[in-house]
Amino acid sequence: MRINERLADQRRPMNLTVNPNKYAEGSVYIEVGDTKVLCTATVEEKVPPFMKGQGRGWVTAEYAMLPRATQTRNQRESARGKLTGRTMEIQRLIGRALRSVVNLQALGERTVIIDCDVVQADGGTRTTSITGAFIAMSIAINKLAQKHNLAVFPVTDYLASVSVGVVGNELLLDLNYEEDSKAKVDMNVVMTGEGKFVEIQGTGEESPFSREEMNGMMELAEKGIREMIAQQQEVLGPIALKIGSGQAGKKV
Amino acid sequence: MRINERLADQRRPMNLTVNPNKYAEGSVYIEVGDTKVLCTATVEEKVPPFMKGQGRGWVTAEYAMLPRATQTRNQRESARGKLTGRTMEIQRLIGRALRSVVNLQALGERTVIIDCDVVQADGGTRTTSITGAFIAMSIAINKLAQKHNLAVFPVTDYLASVSVGVVGNELLLDLNYEEDSKAKVDMNVVMTGEGKFVEIQGTGEESPFSREEMNGMMELAEKGIREMIAQQQEVLGPIALKIGSGQAGKKV
Amino acid sequence: MRINERLADQRRPMNLTVNPNKYAEGSVYIEVGDTKVLCTATVEEKVPPFMKGQGRGWVTAEYAMLPRATQTRNQRESARGKLTGRTMEIQRLIGRALRSVVNLQALGERTVIIDCDVVQADGGTRTTSITGAFIAMSIAINKLAQKHNLAVFPVTDYLASVSVGVVGNELLLDLNYEEDSKAKVDMNVVMTGEGKFVEIQGTGEESPFSREEMNGMMELAEKGIREMIAQQQEVLGPIALKIGSGQAGKKV
Amino acid sequence: MRINERLADQRRPMNLTVNPNKYAEGSVYIEVGDTKVLCTATVEEKVPPFMKGQGRGWVTAEYAMLPRATQTRNQRESARGKLTGRTMEIQRLIGRALRSVVNLQALGERTVIIDCDVVQADGGTRTTSITGAFIAMSIAINKLAQKHNLAVFPVTDYLASVSVGVVGNELLLDLNYEEDSKAKVDMNVVMTGEGKFVEIQGTGEESPFSREEMNGMMELAEKGIREMIAQQQEVLGPIALKIGSGQAGKKV
Amino acid sequence: MRINERLADQRRPMNLTVNPNKYAEGSVYIEVGDTKVLCTATVEEKVPPFMKGQGRGWVTAEYAMLPRATQTRNQRESARGKLTGRTMEIQRLIGRALRSVVNLQALGERTVIIDCDVVQADGGTRTTSITGAFIAMSIAINKLAQKHNLAVFPVTDYLASVSVGVVGNELLLDLNYEEDSKAKVDMNVVMTGEGKFVEIQGTGEESPFSREEMNGMMELAEKGIREMIAQQQEVLGPIALKIGSGQAGKKV
Amino acid sequence: MRINERLADQRRPMNLTVNPNKYAEGSVYIEVGDTKVLCTATVEEKVPPFMKGQGRGWVTAEYAMLPRATQTRNQRESARGKLTGRTMEIQRLIGRALRSVVNLQALGERTVIIDCDVVQADGGTRTTSITGAFIAMSIAINKLAQKHNLAVFPVTDYLASVSVGVVGNELLLDLNYEEDSKAKVDMNVVMTGEGKFVEIQGTGEESPFSREEMNGMMELAEKGIREMIAQQQEVLGPIALKIGSGQAGKKV
Repeated sequence: MRINERLADQRRPMNLTVNPNKYAEGSVYIEVGDTKVLCTATVEEKVPPFMKGQGRGWVTAEYAMLPRATQTRNQRESARGKLTGRTMEIQRLIGRALRSVVNLQALGERTVIIDCDVVQADGGTRTTSITGAFIAMSIAINKLAQKHNLAVFPVTDYLASVSVGVVGNELLLDLNYEEDSKAKVDMNVVMTGEGKFVEIQGTGEESPFSREEMNGMMELAEKGIREMIAQQQEVLGPIALKIGSGQAGKKV
Repeated sequence: MRINERLADQRRPMNLTVNPNKYAEGSVYIEVGDTKVLCTATVEEKVPPFMKGQGRGWVTAEYAMLPRATQTRNQRESARGKLTGRTMEIQRLIGRALRSVVNLQALGERTVIIDCDVVQADGGTRTTSITGAFIAMSIAINKLAQKHNLAVFPVTDYLASVSVGVVGNELLLDLNYEEDSKAKVDMNVVMTGEGKFVEIQGTGEESPFSREEMNGMMELAEKGIREMIAQQQEVLGPIALKIGSGQAGKKV
Repeated sequence: MRINERLADQRRPMNLTVNPNKYAEGSVYIEVGDTKVLCTATVEEKVPPFMKGQGRGWVTAEYAMLPRATQTRNQRESARGKLTGRTMEIQRLIGRALRSVVNLQALGERTVIIDCDVVQADGGTRTTSITGAFIAMSIAINKLAQKHNLAVFPVTDYLASVSVGVVGNELLLDLNYEEDSKAKVDMNVVMTGEGKFVEIQGTGEESPFSREEMNGMMELAEKGIREMIAQQQEVLGPIALKIGSGQAGKKV
Repeated sequence: MRINERLADQRRPMNLTVNPNKYAEGSVYIEVGDTKVLCTATVEEKVPPFMKGQGRGWVTAEYAMLPRATQTRNQRESARGKLTGRTMEIQRLIGRALRSVVNLQALGERTVIIDCDVVQADGGTRTTSITGAFIAMSIAINKLAQKHNLAVFPVTDYLASVSVGVVGNELLLDLNYEEDSKAKVDMNVVMTGEGKFVEIQGTGEESPFSREEMNGMMELAEKGIREMIAQQQEVLGPIALKIGSGQAGKKV
Repeated sequence: MRINERLADQRRPMNLTVNPNKYAEGSVYIEVGDTKVLCTATVEEKVPPFMKGQGRGWVTAEYAMLPRATQTRNQRESARGKLTGRTMEIQRLIGRALRSVVNLQALGERTVIIDCDVVQADGGTRTTSITGAFIAMSIAINKLAQKHNLAVFPVTDYLASVSVGVVGNELLLDLNYEEDSKAKVDMNVVMTGEGKFVEIQGTGEESPFSREEMNGMMELAEKGIREMIAQQQEVLGPIALKIGSGQAGKKV
Repeated sequence: MRINERLADQRRPMNLTVNPNKYAEGSVYIEVGDTKVLCTATVEEKVPPFMKGQGRGWVTAEYAMLPRATQTRNQRESARGKLTGRTMEIQRLIGRALRSVVNLQALGERTVIIDCDVVQADGGTRTTSITGAFIAMSIAINKLAQKHNLAVFPVTDYLASVSVGVVGNELLLDLNYEEDSKAKVDMNVVMTGEGKFVEIQGTGEESPFSREEMNGMMELAEKGIREMIAQQQEVLGPIALKIGSGQAGKKV
């Protein structure tokens, strides 16, 4: 039996507080068990230099942990003077995942920046960030779509993410920190509302894994993500109806 | 009349949530109006190199703003690769202020690091950080005092801080962002429970100020800080009794 | 039909030149089509600070591209003053993959550093780096095992890597740059000699992918990696016999 | 009795050498006791990006110490790769203070940069820098006013600065290094020719201070600064007459 | 007798492989004994900011060593976050030397960047880089001259470089690493096809040298460089005829 | 005729002010025409890590220009966050030159750091720095030799430096900035009291030079440096007698 009597295929409770920040165009405070992330979305009326003049928008993400988000204090990356490889890897992942469900043509020459700041970490901070970032982004894009009367709603599908892993011989859904540190295999899955995969990152540094284990983990992840997307739909309310309505799946 | 019908000598409501973080040795979430800061205290069993072998402890602070704590998004200092002068100035101020009410000898060769992360900014983030940092630090030091059975309680007095300023011809207590940006003079005051000053920083970049204005601002600040210290005492509960009990005021 | 008349499941020719560098403890110059990487292995008689005193070794990797490895010149990371996120991500991946087939206990308190310098890039530089790094590392560890008469040969299994992807509706093995830039889905697979997976990283930024596509890609990757490992065994000669001989798969 | 038989309210001798540098638009070599600072003013026909197109100018300052300005050698900030918090704090203070007596509108879209390089340090380097910077700036602005026939002389008032402190139970004016390191309280005051305050920074890290002590320190500072401004007037000669002549105190 | 039975005035064998890189506008792989450098030339249709609008071109160089080019592994400059003084010194030297034989006016507003990456180092990496860089540059400029039908061929003369030194009492040509580390005096000479000097850098850190020694070293260097230029002419083939043909020696 | 009616082989007037700095172990303010450099020597009772435990000392130098040492203001290297290549090149040169006349064995495990800060630049800042640095170093080492009663005086010979060049068809000694910017060839020579060379750096970026020109420049440099060393001897007074007295020329 897992901590808190969770079943192997049972996620931790997820709590979503919408728009906790009074300045951001969209924001959410997402709690998955004891992992807590503040996601804020900012819309800027410009694109990075390499995209100028193409009539298309851009979505990017930044990720950071507060120094005491973890059991022992981490040095600030601002004090170190540079980002760690881990941070870079995670923020590239979040940005890539979000862009896969945004019609950048429909967005116009604008950038949506999602900031994911981990207030407390207990495993799964990158998957929780993606799940929260999607909500903050959707709220911000909805505001934008209304303000500029966009012809096509730029969000083409839902998006959420969860981790799965192998601990001992058991396949587990949504690992917390303690489970994660004992896991032989660790896999992060990002999936859309249509049930298609956007990112799969499986790592067996401690012990390589077989095709069977992989298939089992994929199934757990699918179950978990479907449940999360249902919760996203609830809190997004009327915005949920617009997602994918325009030209879902058709990206330019 | 000020925004929200405040009187000139009226502070914004202050809300203190104690120990929101499950890992830190002490933490507080402090809200002063729409300014919201998470303060966490970490105790490390070592001191910086320049203090080694003296048998005394150290207290230091770090300060940062989340990118969307403000109306327009700020670039992360970690992405810029260095701290701004403003950040450095503020964290030096917080550290200095806290050390003024800690008996470093009684602390022993340990470092208390206070992280002040501004979640939302609406004026007064540095004074709010000091007021919150004092609480987080006191909780952490109390835990330490119990664990190591310290002979003298190392916190020698209360400490809080508020900003005052001159807007038009009026002296105002606890300026929010809108008032602050119209102020001709801006002063931050840090005071102890005994009513003595630890830091006074007055700036008249827009318009130099007179001795009379200065005296008026000092009085407003004293009133505000006394009220804040009363609230600190409330949330600290039994810890409050220990502060200054040992050898208050006598620093080594 | 693919460029150079390759079939969908056909790899590019791989050429391995062993020990081109006269100083390194092990080195290989690996050419996969027009992608060319110099891999050198260095053995240092110490471990990083976080591993000291545990009696275990460490394997790590660094990756870089020469400025004119690509069609247009890239700015040097040394001139930029920092590593890009892409570089960090890749070198973390290479290190993790290599460690999965090394018995760190058997290695003793030593570090093996693998440098992968891309001389020319035509797609698949990270997978080619892993395949080459494994050879350079094995040669270096063999030298070490002989010199120190190690009881257990620390390399526990073979390791190679290849990329697979979806271009149009076709699943392709070992994409070159031109194919990679048209691919909707791109997956890098790292597999051991036993046919188990160490890393799977699939990205569908341009278009999410289904379970079926994923399974198809996995099969292509398995075929490609088996062929590559056969070539590794050839060039490693007598060293090949020692790999996994000791206590293959049993990591401490 | 103080070192060199100074009285408590007696400043150290101040020596001003005007225009020691043959390239700068204005410069002064200021010696206050053994504290020696070279101040040079540079005029650039542009403003920082954030001020472009507003028809207003800007005044900014940089501060540094030569490595052997102090008893033990300090590492160069260029070798460290970044400015210390202390340096940032000081150069922000100098810039702010200078801007308070400049009519930025009258200056036009130009920047005056004051470089304060401490050749030898014996306490009071920041206050000495401000006092010297004012002279270098005034000379440069005078040259500018003549060259461009400015309608209003942009310098609106005099400006000088001194430190005061509490050593033992005595209030002292213009502390040297030895006194400063024994001081319980240390206050830097910047005042205009009209006797108004531009900056007050009082710090009681070693021991909080009372309103009475503060008032006493303010009086000493006023006395000291009045004397310094008299000396500034002397060396500025005919330029002195223009300061504040236009629309003194009226800033736009 | 020297290592490998070389005479005092005998160079190491030099091997030149032309155009090993499929992307660069010109490239050469130069081997001088065990010193091996890859030189690639890139042409960009722009000049650095300080040269804009003058109708003249620019030639610049970058130099780096792979981490395991040397007996013990060197930390990457990208990982250190900055270039060493040695690297800066060398790349400034290479750029200066190359520009001395290029008619920047005839080149037009373009930049030629030469990257010299040391794959293996055994003494003389900077002189070998210059000799190789000249070839890569000439090939790239020839391509440019044909494409844009330049009126004057911009390369005005040949250029090669060699090191000479004093080991014991003997003057030696083309020192390898072992000889270099025993040398009392070390001199790098860069000379043109006309036999004129472009750079002379002699260093007697271990022991100052006399005019006679200097003259002897100069003669050795001249002999060596003449031989190297003959080899350059061979591999450049028809391009060799164009060098200096236009207005050799006349720079604008 | 040159500026200020100087003859081709005439140096600018050189003025030496000994020990202007009250903290440094040795210092000199050297003025060569309008080029002015403050040189301070610091003795530290430790050596850099790579020299520990060898019983030998180290001499190193740092070089910087104040921002307004030049006609237009230069950005501080501390603000840029890194040293320029020019600065690194110069400080490596100064250090190397000084070490050539110091018996590091006789110095013991100590480091002498010479800081050369250019207060005003009018050509020849690096040669002026070397000439001044030698004086500051000799004073500091003399103090050290007395304090620790060193058996052998560690300074083995005099050292000075001057620049020579070709302007038009004329060979000139000691170029000022205006001459230097018109020079076709520029050579810096460092020579000992015995008339031997320590460094020769000749650059003909604008126009290659012949053996004859080189010989002519060498003769001018010798004349200039002999005169400078005579002036060094004067200001060093009794210290001058000790230089080279011990075991002149014999380095360990």
